[in-house]
Amino acid sequence: MQYKLDKFFNSNHYLSLIPASLKGVSQVILLENAVSGLIILIGLAIASPTLALIAFISSAIGTLVGDLGGADKKQVQIGLFGFNSVLTGIAIMMFMEGGIRWIIAMAGAAVSALLTAAFMHAAKKFAYPVLTFPFIIMTWFLLLSAYRFTTFKLSSDLVPQSLSQWELDASGSPQLIRGLIKGVAEVFLIDVFWSGVFILIAVFWAGWKYGVYTLFATAVSWLVAYFLGADVKLLNLGLYSYNAVLSMIAVGSVYNVRQRIFPFAGTIAAMASVLVTASVDTWLLPFGLPPLTLPFVLCTWLFIGSRKVLRNL
Amino acid sequence: MQYKLDKFFNSNHYLSLIPASLKGVSQVILLENAVSGLIILIGLAIASPTLALIAFISSAIGTLVGDLGGADKKQVQIGLFGFNSVLTGIAIMMFMEGGIRWIIAMAGAAVSALLTAAFMHAAKKFAYPVLTFPFIIMTWFLLLSAYRFTTFKLSSDLVPQSLSQWELDASGSPQLIRGLIKGVAEVFLIDVFWSGVFILIAVFWAGWKYGVYTLFATAVSWLVAYFLGADVKLLNLGLYSYNAVLSMIAVGSVYNVRQRIFPFAGTIAAMASVLVTASVDTWLLPFGLPPLTLPFVLCTWLFIGSRKVLRNL
Amino acid sequence: MQYKLDKFFNSNHYLSLIPASLKGVSQVILLENAVSGLIILIGLAIASPTLALIAFISSAIGTLVGDLGGADKKQVQIGLFGFNSVLTGIAIMMFMEGGIRWIIAMAGAAVSALLTAAFMHAAKKFAYPVLTFPFIIMTWFLLLSAYRFTTFKLSSDLVPQSLSQWELDASGSPQLIRGLIKGVAEVFLIDVFWSGVFILIAVFWAGWKYGVYTLFATAVSWLVAYFLGADVKLLNLGLYSYNAVLSMIAVGSVYNVRQRIFPFAGTIAAMASVLVTASVDTWLLPFGLPPLTLPFVLCTWLFIGSRKVLRNL
Repeated sequence: MQYKLDKFFNSNHYLSLIPASLKGVSQVILLENAVSGLIILIGLAIASPTLALIAFISSAIGTLVGDLGGADKKQVQIGLFGFNSVLTGIAIMMFMEGGIRWIIAMAGAAVSALLTAAFMHAAKKFAYPVLTFPFIIMTWFLLLSAYRFTTFKLSSDLVPQSLSQWELDASGSPQLIRGLIKGVAEVFLIDVFWSGVFILIAVFWAGWKYGVYTLFATAVSWLVAYFLGADVKLLNLGLYSYNAVLSMIAVGSVYNVRQRIFPFAGTIAAMASVLVTASVDTWLLPFGLPPLTLPFVLCTWLFIGSRKVLRNL
Repeated sequence: MQYKLDKFFNSNHYLSLIPASLKGVSQVILLENAVSGLIILIGLAIASPTLALIAFISSAIGTLVGDLGGADKKQVQIGLFGFNSVLTGIAIMMFMEGGIRWIIAMAGAAVSALLTAAFMHAAKKFAYPVLTFPFIIMTWFLLLSAYRFTTFKLSSDLVPQSLSQWELDASGSPQLIRGLIKGVAEVFLIDVFWSGVFILIAVFWAGWKYGVYTLFATAVSWLVAYFLGADVKLLNLGLYSYNAVLSMIAVGSVYNVRQRIFPFAGTIAAMASVLVTASVDTWLLPFGLPPLTLPFVLCTWLFIGSRKVLRNL
Repeated sequence: MQYKLDKFFNSNHYLSLIPASLKGVSQVILLENAVSGLIILIGLAIASPTLALIAFISSAIGTLVGDLGGADKKQVQIGLFGFNSVLTGIAIMMFMEGGIRWIIAMAGAAVSALLTAAFMHAAKKFAYPVLTFPFIIMTWFLLLSAYRFTTFKLSSDLVPQSLSQWELDASGSPQLIRGLIKGVAEVFLIDVFWSGVFILIAVFWAGWKYGVYTLFATAVSWLVAYFLGADVKLLNLGLYSYNAVLSMIAVGSVYNVRQRIFPFAGTIAAMASVLVTASVDTWLLPFGLPPLTLPFVLCTWLFIGSRKVLRNL
């Protein structure tokens, strides 16, 4: 069956962009696996069929921009022009309202692919991967622009607030299991338990090691955040964990040349991501922006960069 | 006559810096043409003779810093050390008050040339042009410093405001023609119709294609901003258009290797600059800073960078 | 005695990290001198023995991370992995409260060394030194994260404030000598006259030229800030001078290939640092963060970068 499918998708150039787009979905969590991409889309559909639809369309748009733009064919095929578009599409659907967000999401997905290309060029000089940085910049720009156009409507979840008026309210009763699984779901900006379960299955499908890392990272970050006294409501939503999951997979495995039995650097990165999440949250408060996956990007760049100088890391 | 003038200006090294300084004025709009520079100065003088004076002095200061500093002679001659100084000088005269602003403007013009040199060094690694980035950074630093010194007076136009208290007021009656022409004038931070007319003549003088692009970009950006529901008062001032004009000329022509009949990428850049203008405006609200030409710089870098990876763009 | 000490410290690899850690302390002020490091620690102990202790421990942690991480041995020995950790350790003790800050300071010192490594990799492409940039970023992240964890307590000195509510109060009676000496002490974030005296002795110990530059820079910056009308209370605390001292030593001597009798570029950098300090202060107001040594880093990078293009500078 796998063989027949491969043959079918390779029979036509544009058909071959379908598995590339599915791989784009899986690349969000640093995997290159079309089946995992499909399982993730099912997980998204549980939260909302609309989200699954925009995720796939956005990945296809990004992949198409890469393809028509004349990018390296290999990079297009493994989904590298899709994943930032996937996240931009989902973020716009989540953080904006009204019918126009469909157009904004799709235009945003297209421009995300351009931004990915531009950052690829810049990051290559440092031998860094762009990770989800293009998505973050793209989404922040679109959300900030909404304050200036009457046709753009922001979700009421996004509330700018002066830091001078900020009061930390950490109360709430912790729900460990829900928090852990939602920490996986939040990689796709989703706050639904069963979506998290499907995304976890997709990760295990791509390799049991990734799955174990994911569970370990979500647990470690949960514990660190809990003992430092973070807001329990955010913990229960998994908002201190999704960056840890991504950092762990990136630092512990994908961008790691010397594989050790215990992913020491990955664990440090996962723990650091908790503090960076807190910092970025504070920094963005006056602008009413979500931190998205910036903590993951920063922690991963930190380790990729420091490993070039500290070779034993 | 042209021949005699050339001979005169080349008769002495310091005299040769006069056409270099005029070219510095024209480089603001990405042209290298001393006559265009002169026409622009006339346009500025219509708005205010003071502005024309500081523009020329600033360009001369920047050019002189490049010359005495030992920069590449060719780059000094075509005005590359002048244009950021021109804009810094004008911006300080516009956004500050009192006699001391003359000194600040001239010191700022000198340091702008240093900053241009520093960014040239950094940008060379990415094969990027510095565009007007040094001017933007320099001006923001000078404006922000004014809050801390009793001798510096900011214009009352600059009002920091919390984003949490922001209300969009998009009302007003659109004035298409005025908005289009002022969109050209705002490249030099000026809000005067006849200045815009002269700058447009200067652009046509340098090449009819640049002129057509300028008119097209100002119209496209006006339409995009209008239909997205932007503040009509800002539209009438041309504040959604000047970045589009610059992006169009940069992406559509100056930094474009494959000249097509219709400047597709340039048009996208011009449209994108409208959204980026809105975002940058929102982001700067708490600091009370003007966006200056940052949207142009970002949109142009986006396309220059992505073209290195997406070769068909 | 010097010879015997050298022999003793070189008798064992880990013992050799002690002079490296002392050099790390002196590298804060761009010197590489273990004795100067020791004199500085005595100066810090006058202000608070706790600060001297955390400074040395932090330097040792940073140096150890560099050593175990497998960095270039030479760079570890001259203290390049220590100085950012020293400042991070001191900053956390100054700007946080409670017993947990010891743990944060030491963890911060360790991660500062990683960040130093990562920035070294990035900065190498531009042939730039990292200076104290890793310390600045690290400290800001830790301070911002404190708003989100109940276990972290910020010092009451750090008050976020909207720029729209800012009023400049420049009153106060200037104390020239105290301000000059405290301007030296503030390089280590300390506001104690006699600490400044010891740090000054440490600088003279490393070379009389550095000492003269230090006194000249603190005087020049004081005068510039005073005549521009800066807040006299900040002047008396030396807060407009410490960045000038560092900029002067860096631009005038350490990163200067052509040594002139009068350090022209260094003087410009010292003067510019006064304005950059004011700007950075304003920019950070809504976040309640201290500017730390960012003005020094920016002014020094400006000159290092522009000298690559303007060779006569």
